[in-house]
Amino acid sequence: MGQLTQDGVARRIIAAIKDQIHSGAHPPGSRLPATRALAAEWGVSRTTVTAAYSQLIAEGYLTSRPGARAVVAHGLDGAPAPVDPPPAARRLSEFGQRLLALPPPVPAASARLADFRYGDLSGADFPVLAWRRAVNRVSLRRVARLRYDDPRGSAALRVALQGYLWRARGIRCSSDQIVIVNGSQQGLDLCARLLLDPGDPFLFENPGYALARHAFTAVGGVEIPIPVDEDGLRVDALSSAAAATAALAPATLAYVTPSHQFPLGGVLSAGRRRALLDWAARSGAVIVEDDYDGEYRHGVAPIPPLRALAPDCVVYVGTLSKTLSPTLRLGYLVVPPSLERAFAEAKRLTDRHAPLLEQEALADLLTSGAYERHVRAIRRKNAERRAALLAAVAETLGDAAVVAGTDAGLHILLWLPGVPVAREAAILAEARAVGIGLYPVSPLYAPGGDRPACVGLVMGYAALEDDALRRGIAALADLLTTRGDP
Amino acid sequence: MGQLTQDGVARRIIAAIKDQIHSGAHPPGSRLPATRALAAEWGVSRTTVTAAYSQLIAEGYLTSRPGARAVVAHGLDGAPAPVDPPPAARRLSEFGQRLLALPPPVPAASARLADFRYGDLSGADFPVLAWRRAVNRVSLRRVARLRYDDPRGSAALRVALQGYLWRARGIRCSSDQIVIVNGSQQGLDLCARLLLDPGDPFLFENPGYALARHAFTAVGGVEIPIPVDEDGLRVDALSSAAAATAALAPATLAYVTPSHQFPLGGVLSAGRRRALLDWAARSGAVIVEDDYDGEYRHGVAPIPPLRALAPDCVVYVGTLSKTLSPTLRLGYLVVPPSLERAFAEAKRLTDRHAPLLEQEALADLLTSGAYERHVRAIRRKNAERRAALLAAVAETLGDAAVVAGTDAGLHILLWLPGVPVAREAAILAEARAVGIGLYPVSPLYAPGGDRPACVGLVMGYAALEDDALRRGIAALADLLTTRGDP
Repeated sequence: MGQLTQDGVARRIIAAIKDQIHSGAHPPGSRLPATRALAAEWGVSRTTVTAAYSQLIAEGYLTSRPGARAVVAHGLDGAPAPVDPPPAARRLSEFGQRLLALPPPVPAASARLADFRYGDLSGADFPVLAWRRAVNRVSLRRVARLRYDDPRGSAALRVALQGYLWRARGIRCSSDQIVIVNGSQQGLDLCARLLLDPGDPFLFENPGYALARHAFTAVGGVEIPIPVDEDGLRVDALSSAAAATAALAPATLAYVTPSHQFPLGGVLSAGRRRALLDWAARSGAVIVEDDYDGEYRHGVAPIPPLRALAPDCVVYVGTLSKTLSPTLRLGYLVVPPSLERAFAEAKRLTDRHAPLLEQEALADLLTSGAYERHVRAIRRKNAERRAALLAAVAETLGDAAVVAGTDAGLHILLWLPGVPVAREAAILAEARAVGIGLYPVSPLYAPGGDRPACVGLVMGYAALEDDALRRGIAALADLLTTRGDP
Repeated sequence: MGQLTQDGVARRIIAAIKDQIHSGAHPPGSRLPATRALAAEWGVSRTTVTAAYSQLIAEGYLTSRPGARAVVAHGLDGAPAPVDPPPAARRLSEFGQRLLALPPPVPAASARLADFRYGDLSGADFPVLAWRRAVNRVSLRRVARLRYDDPRGSAALRVALQGYLWRARGIRCSSDQIVIVNGSQQGLDLCARLLLDPGDPFLFENPGYALARHAFTAVGGVEIPIPVDEDGLRVDALSSAAAATAALAPATLAYVTPSHQFPLGGVLSAGRRRALLDWAARSGAVIVEDDYDGEYRHGVAPIPPLRALAPDCVVYVGTLSKTLSPTLRLGYLVVPPSLERAFAEAKRLTDRHAPLLEQEALADLLTSGAYERHVRAIRRKNAERRAALLAAVAETLGDAAVVAGTDAGLHILLWLPGVPVAREAAILAEARAVGIGLYPVSPLYAPGGDRPACVGLVMGYAALEDDALRRGIAALADLLTTRGDP
C-alpha cells in the first residue's frame, strides 16, 4: 500500500515536471530543484523525488552527471504535442480499400419470436460438461516450457483429425497435410492469399457464401460466377464461363460447397464431381472444397468429398462451427502435398498457430469418442428441428412456399413464388416488426448479375426449438396473408 | 449396433457398385440387379440394398424412375480418376512466393542444460488455477445462442483492457479502438495488409524483430532499415534514410519497439519519441508500436507509450504472450480512430473474431484483479532470474562479455567482443553439443546490410530457473576458454 502511494505521488511529480518542461517553465539546460527542496515542497520523502527524477532521466526528459543536479534535456524545447493530419491522409492499402468497398455484413437481428439466422447454434446444444472436462484435463498437463507450437497446430489434434476424417468422411491424408485454422474463414483467407493475385479470376458458386466471396475479392481476385441448380454447381457452365471471360487469365481457383451448396442446398452429383475434377486437372487450378456442414445429411449416407477423390488439387476446408460452436473459432484445412509448406508458413506469418488449449481439448474429445457421440446426438436433434420446420411450412404456408435444399445441412431454402423481389425489403421489415428474423438469398448472388424474380429466404433452424420454429412460420404465414389482402 | 452394421454393409455395397461402374462392368444406361437379387447375393436385407441404391442415386451414380429399376447414370463412362498435374503447376500468388523466399525460422533447440531461447516462458509460471477458475466460470454462463461475435472481440474484454491500458500504460482509448487479435503476430499482419502495398517502403529497426519484418515484406513492403543504438531507434537517421531512398515513395509505416528495443534492448528516449511522432505527423505515416514486453522494466517506472502521446497516428500492439503464455495466442491492437472500421473489417474477413472462451477468461482475470496480481508476481520472478543471469555473467564471463539492454524485458544482449562473427556458427554448434541453446543477434539485421564484427547473443531467461541460468553461463564460459586455448 505504501509502495502504491509512493508510486502514485512520484507519478504526479513526473507529470507536473513534464508539464513544466513542455510549457517552457523549465527551458533546456536548466537545472531542476534539488531533491530535498522538491521533497519539502510536495511533502514527500527524498526517495520519492529521486525515483521521479530517475524516471525522467530514463525517459530522456532530464540528463544527469554524477554529483550534479539533473538538467532539462535538449531537443524537447517547447515542441507542441504532434498534430495529427486529417484521417483522409491515412492511406489504406489496395487490400484495405477493396475491403471497405465490400457490402456491409447483414446485422444480427434480435427477433423475439424466431430468428432464422443461418450459422447460429443453440446454446443448449453445446456439450458443456464434456468440453469442461476436456479443458480441465488438458489444462492440468504440466509442460516445462510454454513456447510457440508448430504453425500447423497441435500434433495430437492433427493425428486425431486424420483418423476422424478417414472414419467420417473417407479422406485419407497425412497429418502433415492438416493445418488447424481459426475457423473456416481463416482457411479461406489463407487460400485467397496464397493462390490469388490481384486480377486473377476465380470460379464461384452463384449464389454463394458471401464471406468466401469477400475473402477472394479482397485480395483482388475477379469473380467468375457459375450458376447453381438443385444438384449444386453447374459444371457444364465452366467452359462457357471461361469463354465469356477470355480476356482474363484462366481461373486458378474454384470455390465449391459440394456436400450442401450454400445457400441453395443442392448436393453436387457424382458426375459433376468428376467433371469438376477433370477441369481442375486440365487447368491446374486448385479447388477449395468448403465442407461447412458435411456432418448433416438427411436420409442419405455421406458423399465422399472431392478431396477423397483428388488429394492433389483440392484444399478441403472443415469447421467445428456447426457441430460445437462458431465462437470456438476452430477449423482445419487438408491441403495438397505440394502446398504443405506454403500453408504452414502462411499460418505462421499470419498468427503463429491456433490457440493450443482448445486444440488439445478437441483432440481429447476426438480420441475419447465424445466428439462423435456428440455429433450423433446433435445430428438427431437437428433432424428433429428440420422435420418440425418442414411440417410447419407444409401445414401453414402450403402453396405460398416452395422448399429446396433439404437433403443436408442446417438450413433450408424457402422460395415465396407469390412475392416479387421488389417487396423483399418490406417483407423483411414487417417480419422484424412482428419478431421474426429473416435472411434473404438475394445478397448472395454475384454483384451486378441476375437475381431471382421472387423472394427466397435462407432459413437456419439449428438455434430454434420446435415451438419457436412453428410460431415463426405461423407469423410469416400471417404476414404473407395479411399483405396479400387489399 | 444393428444400425452400424447395416450402415457398414451398405457402405461396402456402395463401394463395390462404384468400382464396377468405374471399371466399366456396369456401362451407362445399364440396369442394376433387382434389390431382392442383390440382397440375396450379399446375404443382407432388401432394406440395406435399397439404402445403398438411394445413396448411389443421391450421389448421381444411378438414376431411377418410379416403378423401374435403377440404371447407371450417363457422364460417368469409364473416365479415370483425374490425374493431377505436377506440383510445379500449382502456381503460388506473389505473396506466397515472397513468403517462401523468406529465411527459414530458427528451429527450437532441445538443450538439456539451458535453452536461452527468447520468447519461451516457464510452464511453472502460468497461473494454472486462476486460469482454470476463470475458464470454468465463463464456460458455465448460459447463452441462448452461439453466434459470431463482434470482429473486434468480446465487449467485456475490450472494456477490461481499456481500464488496464489506462492503469498500467497510461493509454486512454475507447473500447471501440481495441481489436482483440490472435497474438501480436496477427496484429502485425493486419497492419501489413491494411497499410502496405507491394513496393511501399516501411521503416524498420535494424536489427529488429524478424517475424515483424517478414509480415511487412511478405505483403510486398520494401524495408528501409534504420539503425538502433542503446536509446532505441536512431530517429536522427530517418531523414537520411529517406534521402537515400529518394526513388521510393515516402514510407507510410514505421515499426518500433520503444519500451525495450528488440533485440538490442534500448528504451526509446523521450526526445526521440517526440521526434518520431513529429516525423509521423509530417509524413502522414502510421507508427506500429510493438509493446511486446512493456510489463517488464527493471528499476524505472513505465515510460508512456507512443500511443499515449499521439493516438491518431499510432497502432499500439499488445500481447499476453509474455505475461500468460505464447500458446494462448491472445493479443490486442489499439488503433487510431480513423482506422477503426478498416481493422474491424479486416479482422472479420481474416477469421471472424478471436476465440471467445479465452477472451472471456482473460476479461474475468482482468476485472477480478487476478491478472495484475499475476503480473506483479511474475515480474518479481523474472527480476530474480535477470539478477541471477547478470550475476553469473559478471562472475563467470568477466571481460569476455559485454552486457546490454538490461533495463527492461525478458532478455539481455550478450556481446562477445573476443569472438569474431565468422566463428558464430561453430560456437553455436559447440554450445548445442554441450547442451546450451544460444540464439545469435546476426539474423535480426536487415538482409544485405552491415553486421556487427563480433558475436552477439539474444539471451532469453524467462523459461530458466536460477541454477539452469548459472550452469548455462558456466558452460558457455568453459567453451569460450577452451576454444581460446591453442
